[in-house]
Amino acid sequence: MSDPVGATHRQHRIVIIGCGFGGLFAARALKRTPDVQVTLIDRRNHHLFQPLLYQVATGILSEGEIAPPIRDILRKYKSLRVVLAEVQRIDVVARQVHADEFGTPLTVDYDSLIVAGGATTSYFGHDDFKASARGMKSLDDALALRGQIFGTFELAEAERDDAARHRLMTFVVVGGGPTGVEMAGQLKELSRRALHNNYRRINPRDTRVVLVEGTDRLLGSMGARVSRLTARDLGRMGVEIHLNAMVTNVSTEGAEITKGDGSTEWVPAATKVWAAGTRAAGLGAMLAEAAGAEVDKAGRVLVEPDCSLPGHSEVFVVGDLMALDDLPAVAEVAIQTGAHAAHTIERRLQGKEPKPFRYHDLGTLAAIARFRAVAHIGPLQLDGFVGWLLWLVVHITFLTGFKNRFGALARWAVSFIGRGRYERALTGPWVARVERTSKSA
Amino acid sequence: MSDPVGATHRQHRIVIIGCGFGGLFAARALKRTPDVQVTLIDRRNHHLFQPLLYQVATGILSEGEIAPPIRDILRKYKSLRVVLAEVQRIDVVARQVHADEFGTPLTVDYDSLIVAGGATTSYFGHDDFKASARGMKSLDDALALRGQIFGTFELAEAERDDAARHRLMTFVVVGGGPTGVEMAGQLKELSRRALHNNYRRINPRDTRVVLVEGTDRLLGSMGARVSRLTARDLGRMGVEIHLNAMVTNVSTEGAEITKGDGSTEWVPAATKVWAAGTRAAGLGAMLAEAAGAEVDKAGRVLVEPDCSLPGHSEVFVVGDLMALDDLPAVAEVAIQTGAHAAHTIERRLQGKEPKPFRYHDLGTLAAIARFRAVAHIGPLQLDGFVGWLLWLVVHITFLTGFKNRFGALARWAVSFIGRGRYERALTGPWVARVERTSKSA
Repeated sequence: MSDPVGATHRQHRIVIIGCGFGGLFAARALKRTPDVQVTLIDRRNHHLFQPLLYQVATGILSEGEIAPPIRDILRKYKSLRVVLAEVQRIDVVARQVHADEFGTPLTVDYDSLIVAGGATTSYFGHDDFKASARGMKSLDDALALRGQIFGTFELAEAERDDAARHRLMTFVVVGGGPTGVEMAGQLKELSRRALHNNYRRINPRDTRVVLVEGTDRLLGSMGARVSRLTARDLGRMGVEIHLNAMVTNVSTEGAEITKGDGSTEWVPAATKVWAAGTRAAGLGAMLAEAAGAEVDKAGRVLVEPDCSLPGHSEVFVVGDLMALDDLPAVAEVAIQTGAHAAHTIERRLQGKEPKPFRYHDLGTLAAIARFRAVAHIGPLQLDGFVGWLLWLVVHITFLTGFKNRFGALARWAVSFIGRGRYERALTGPWVARVERTSKSA
Repeated sequence: MSDPVGATHRQHRIVIIGCGFGGLFAARALKRTPDVQVTLIDRRNHHLFQPLLYQVATGILSEGEIAPPIRDILRKYKSLRVVLAEVQRIDVVARQVHADEFGTPLTVDYDSLIVAGGATTSYFGHDDFKASARGMKSLDDALALRGQIFGTFELAEAERDDAARHRLMTFVVVGGGPTGVEMAGQLKELSRRALHNNYRRINPRDTRVVLVEGTDRLLGSMGARVSRLTARDLGRMGVEIHLNAMVTNVSTEGAEITKGDGSTEWVPAATKVWAAGTRAAGLGAMLAEAAGAEVDKAGRVLVEPDCSLPGHSEVFVVGDLMALDDLPAVAEVAIQTGAHAAHTIERRLQGKEPKPFRYHDLGTLAAIARFRAVAHIGPLQLDGFVGWLLWLVVHITFLTGFKNRFGALARWAVSFIGRGRYERALTGPWVARVERTSKSA
């Protein structure tokens, strides 16, 4: 095995793959661990605060506010090196990670490995939907949706044909989890408040927002009361909610909704947001191949109670990539399992026995509109302004870095107390002349 | 002539082309004018505060903070309609503007026309430089440069070859006007402060910034003392300044500098910023063709003392597109000529004689680093902290809208008192794996 530059044999080499919530909190937990050398590998230069991605897509926050650079967050961790590279292969026998660093092969040796590869959008086998229904997993997704949302209002203002204009002002949101609910709510907020008085031909209040959920309630991971309150609040705002319904076809022109009774409805809609499913990243399959790891049908890797890989106690799988005790694919699970893996490595270095992972459910939150959120915390199921205050406190607490907390608070003041949206500038293809081909895109 | 919907024959129809400083201040000046109907045409959905473009390129401000949506700025002007379209032809005989509105032909009749088309980057006949040296005129320019700047530091950290790494960490800024000076200063600030401790292999302080100016001094439009102070300050920060020098060749690999004595130097540099020349937008040539207007060698339209087109007193040309009394192509001239054209139309409607335009020079400012700016105001030539305070007050005053003032102040606090840069997230092609081909781009 080749040693990386600067390593001594005293140091325990830890490699973390991925800097989402799981990888970031694993790295942080190792901050004061003596005699370790940590290498954090990610293909992106930023951590991403995914729960607020919908606010980038709707112009409230800027991309930087939810995506701080990994190097900057961890700059003071002297024993840690950040490598921007794409992992290509994991060799659990030689204990090496093979990656591609801007076209150059890179091999990193490890004594312990934490795999926190996260998840991508799943179209449930309908990968052809991808071209017309954007997912909500990356900053690129959010920026593409932002252009699409503000761009289609421009196209609608220019459109003379009634049917074509209605199509441009219709948004289908697929999936009634937190992302779908918050996205649907914000699209209504946008059309009712932020775009007020902006247009002369169209009335943004005529915007149609259709929310499609496969089960019998919204926010299924939260309590029944929360689901009821959410449906009521969104309904009052004018969101059309279809429960027990599936989007069975998607094209650039619109979406086909198949309802519980088997009937179908074709909704002409320029914008489709796919917030329905997630699938574990390709790293799951990579581990299956390398170490014979078992994966579930969502591609997640089955792990031991301490989050380690069966037969490879030096390899940990955490967060959305991990299948353990039916834990949901949420930030809180990633944070806690990432930290647990780090602590387990530390305990072993100290000669202590590893402990099984125990999840502390701190509750779930979703913002419906300004000053209005739902929360499910232990026995409590809150909504309205109290829920929103809680949402505010939790999100400010978990946003990474003082700078981003400060910035987000300032922008929320502008957007929620005022009516503005900061980020509405259309760039790239969104020039009047160039965009002629995308009128039905 | 066809009448637009809602027009009555009492109303005087004014068309404004372009919503830069000239067009925006023309529209604002018409806010309370009775019996007018104003149509503002732009191919972009946003106004752009160009003097702060370099702060978007270096990650300090977000795009929305300097590019508010035109519709939103002018939403309360009930007599005004904003049209997103690209002007294709001006018919000064029929008094019509022909435009392309997302692929649909649009004809707008006017009684008075204000053409505020602005300027684009000029490569002085070397249009082949464009592919390797990005201009600094649009939001797309700034975002592309932002990706390039933060991306090349990532490439440098991954690079094993010394010469290749030096090339990645070298920035050539062409043009010693305000944009070039501020850009060069910020690149040094970035490498000295914002990226501190971020990397393990490279030291961002090794960044080489080369500023090339064709004349014998920086900020030539300001006083000689200001030029001297600027050169001193930038020199102390480590910027290499070449006066009386030209960039005579540019490729993806670097730039060739030809000095006053005729000698040449090849500077290997991944990033070239072209802040050297501007050329009036194509609307100048369009007016020349339509109305036989005379244009100067920079493509600017020669106008009468009241900013109107010779032979067409109902057509005004303002801002960077206009050639009058050797006035410089700066925001202040655009603001004052735009407002003057509007007031002239108003005076005519009231049966009053038009007045010639008189420029009130309010001075010039350029920020060199944090807490350090130069200013030339009347007989005063300031620098240092006092200059910077003035810079701060002026920019906050002229930023459009309360929201953007508030946001910019918050971000400047973060960047200047702190050391952070908000917007460093790399998107689009800047993923480790995809970018392998651009290692020498």
